[in-house]
Amino acid sequence: MIDLPLTAQTRIRREAHHQVTDRAALYDVIDGALSGTIAIVRDDRPVALPIGIGRDGDDLLIHGSTGSDFFRRIAAGAPVCVTVTHLLGLKYARSLFDSSMRYRCAVVHGVASVVPADEKEAALLTLSEHLMPGRGLEVRPMTTRELAATMVLRIPLATASVKDNAGSMVEEDDDGEDRAVWAGTLPLRMSVGEPVTSPQTRGGTPVPPSVQRAAARVTASGTA
Amino acid sequence: MIDLPLTAQTRIRREAHHQVTDRAALYDVIDGALSGTIAIVRDDRPVALPIGIGRDGDDLLIHGSTGSDFFRRIAAGAPVCVTVTHLLGLKYARSLFDSSMRYRCAVVHGVASVVPADEKEAALLTLSEHLMPGRGLEVRPMTTRELAATMVLRIPLATASVKDNAGSMVEEDDDGEDRAVWAGTLPLRMSVGEPVTSPQTRGGTPVPPSVQRAAARVTASGTA
Repeated sequence: MIDLPLTAQTRIRREAHHQVTDRAALYDVIDGALSGTIAIVRDDRPVALPIGIGRDGDDLLIHGSTGSDFFRRIAAGAPVCVTVTHLLGLKYARSLFDSSMRYRCAVVHGVASVVPADEKEAALLTLSEHLMPGRGLEVRPMTTRELAATMVLRIPLATASVKDNAGSMVEEDDDGEDRAVWAGTLPLRMSVGEPVTSPQTRGGTPVPPSVQRAAARVTASGTA
Repeated sequence: MIDLPLTAQTRIRREAHHQVTDRAALYDVIDGALSGTIAIVRDDRPVALPIGIGRDGDDLLIHGSTGSDFFRRIAAGAPVCVTVTHLLGLKYARSLFDSSMRYRCAVVHGVASVVPADEKEAALLTLSEHLMPGRGLEVRPMTTRELAATMVLRIPLATASVKDNAGSMVEEDDDGEDRAVWAGTLPLRMSVGEPVTSPQTRGGTPVPPSVQRAAARVTASGTA
């Protein structure tokens, strides 16, 4: 894979040594995430909302209602910035100044393209496999009406940056501070609870493989 | 407390019944979070980056380097949008269409003001108490140089929206689907690992109360 290009938009300016240009690192951040934040410019001001994400090869996939003003603006070509962050820990240095958070973050800039009608169902299934692997086989197919009500958008993973400071989870610089003050990291990770069965589900219906699979994935990666 | 006002910027357009206008709900989302995403407009395009957050009464607090172009733009009056999201679960409906994520999210719009030099240390301690409660008492005071290198900004919590669909974690609408298909929710929560002591910490130094406190808070709330 070709490395992520460094441009005026993607070159990280602060703590530049934590920038990762390996494209696989970008895909890892996205594939380990269920959601991110998508920002657009509306009336000269930024608006950023949470969004579920998926990936299809070199494209980021998102979806929304065809009735959404926010999505319509994106579909019409409003530039977007999608930010995906995995918070990995709190780093306790020996000063507040050097204390910080440990995270991996991807920032994707681009303009989305609308997935055409004849590719929409496949794209939605790809997105569904990202968010709830295996679930598509457990439920009925999508209806024509549901497909018509849903907009699917691709954002090329061409202009993107990844920052990863997790390498310094343990080792800090020799900062010349008092070694009797504890320094270290409190790791943070995403975890799952026990699946909660809807009261309307027929009694005795087991928790399906898709839910077990999603739970195992979060448990293994510590991210979501 | 006065409710959050509904304006063109804060009125939620999709799933409006999940909007919460209670100001306490906004503070809960912020107080239960270590970080969010901050978006600005740069060269007519959105840029959104992860950021640590704090709260001082009716203001959101953020900080960054005085050398950061991004922060300088914010300090100069660039409108910001701060988005704080707690991902609470994956809702498995009996169709992909009705499946979704369960979350609480705050979106704060505004223009930041720079905290003046004589209030900076107090504001940084407030921010530190939000991110690492008690840590300020365990480490040396901030130095003049550190204070000079740090910019602290206030964003009034005046124009903000909160969306909370966690109430539907369990009950879904009677959707007329096949009850033999399992439906329910996979809860997601933030958790902590064992604190990792830096190798440079003097042997036998115990994990301090501030770290235990942060861990207990994440464990109790399931958010960070």
